[in-house]
Amino acid sequence: MKNPSHIPHPTSDNPTILLCNDDGIHAPGISILHRAVNGLGELRVVAPDVERSAAGHAITLSEPIKSTPVEKDGVFFGDAIGGTPADCIKLAVCALMKDAPPNLVLSGINLGSNTGISVIYSGTVSAASEGTVLGIPSIAFSLCTYVDPEWEMAERIVKELTEKMIENPPPPGVLLNINMPNLPYEELKGIKITRMGRSRFIEKFHRREDPRGRTYYWLDGALEVHDDGDDIDIHAVRDGYVSITPIHLDLTAYDHLKTFQFLEVTA
Amino acid sequence: MKNPSHIPHPTSDNPTILLCNDDGIHAPGISILHRAVNGLGELRVVAPDVERSAAGHAITLSEPIKSTPVEKDGVFFGDAIGGTPADCIKLAVCALMKDAPPNLVLSGINLGSNTGISVIYSGTVSAASEGTVLGIPSIAFSLCTYVDPEWEMAERIVKELTEKMIENPPPPGVLLNINMPNLPYEELKGIKITRMGRSRFIEKFHRREDPRGRTYYWLDGALEVHDDGDDIDIHAVRDGYVSITPIHLDLTAYDHLKTFQFLEVTA
Repeated sequence: MKNPSHIPHPTSDNPTILLCNDDGIHAPGISILHRAVNGLGELRVVAPDVERSAAGHAITLSEPIKSTPVEKDGVFFGDAIGGTPADCIKLAVCALMKDAPPNLVLSGINLGSNTGISVIYSGTVSAASEGTVLGIPSIAFSLCTYVDPEWEMAERIVKELTEKMIENPPPPGVLLNINMPNLPYEELKGIKITRMGRSRFIEKFHRREDPRGRTYYWLDGALEVHDDGDDIDIHAVRDGYVSITPIHLDLTAYDHLKTFQFLEVTA
Repeated sequence: MKNPSHIPHPTSDNPTILLCNDDGIHAPGISILHRAVNGLGELRVVAPDVERSAAGHAITLSEPIKSTPVEKDGVFFGDAIGGTPADCIKLAVCALMKDAPPNLVLSGINLGSNTGISVIYSGTVSAASEGTVLGIPSIAFSLCTYVDPEWEMAERIVKELTEKMIENPPPPGVLLNINMPNLPYEELKGIKITRMGRSRFIEKFHRREDPRGRTYYWLDGALEVHDDGDDIDIHAVRDGYVSITPIHLDLTAYDHLKTFQFLEVTA
């Protein structure tokens, strides 16, 4: 995809960096992200007003989107958006920062992994995807734990990788999905380039009744891996590596264009 | 991806077909879809209770999901779900139809095209994607208009293609995204296998004030094509062809695994 001409490429001079997440502007991860890259450019925070996990690439078309200024714990000022992560990036790039669009989009730091098939449900990845659609180099960061997060490690890794990506931004149409194992920095085994592991969720719905006797369901599930490769994101994290997966948004199954030729008809 | 062993492959005997959409169970498109494939198998309708367009691949984790029986205009009985299209498919396959899971998932008929980059935002495609994740052959149908839909043509095309896909289901991990131009059947130019066209939305946010003086935004936009190929979905529909794009859910940018090798580190 061509880079829209109105968006300048990032430069190491003083890039403008847009920060977003899907756990909401009040989540700890976005404050750590802010601290990690503070000093690398002009920072702007535009993030959902509440948690929007598993929002996929949803956008809001049928309702208005509200934007409210927020000051967070003396750490940063930002805009809390009544919408999805993808809404935040669209609104930031096309309205709030229209006169000086960002050179880089960073999403996270998510608590919980975004590996394997989780990528298609992930609000964290969708914020970075939307940056990519809009022609802006974008990175998603996730820390693979829900308890006792190793924020110090995450902060160092985010800073180091962001510095490198400002110097060498991903090509148009490609974003980086970065997953960090929950280890102290010194215990990391390294950094690996990976592919998205084949996997699915094994769903379990809890069936219950509300106080008025009406049935409702609550989704629960665990990731099941259907992939033996040692080059996949899930295994890299399991083995103590930071996983970096280049992601694109062309979903065409090129290997199967010929599979379906028998359906072609010419009038 | 391996086909989970508990899900039988479709057979031409009497497949169970799950119908969903993203315009909601009360939209006309799902009634047409029902009529088109009635007689091809046992039909079950599980669809959102309200319009869920542009829901992307969102799923509902933090809230309960309600299911309500609905009888629609004497056409069918179904379950109206208080959730996203992907929720509907998960809930149907893993709870409502657990004892006899569907052999085929059909999503649509959507009003409005799902071509190019629209695919990543589409609730219609996401229902079919979720079927694919769960190992079930799945197809998404869209009719590329918002006005004066050619339902008769759409009904015939849906029936013809569904019959063929029951005989020759797509391989595991691949779904079909089908877009129909809004023409009478006799004026169709044919059926083409296509790829997802490179494109983006040019967003425009309308900035307004609510009655209490608070700012809100409303998203508007038009698709801009960045692709000259005559093999893309967008151009096929423009030229009067039914477009069939095989879609997979592995977002790895394989061409760029080497691009980022400079980031690799081994401790």
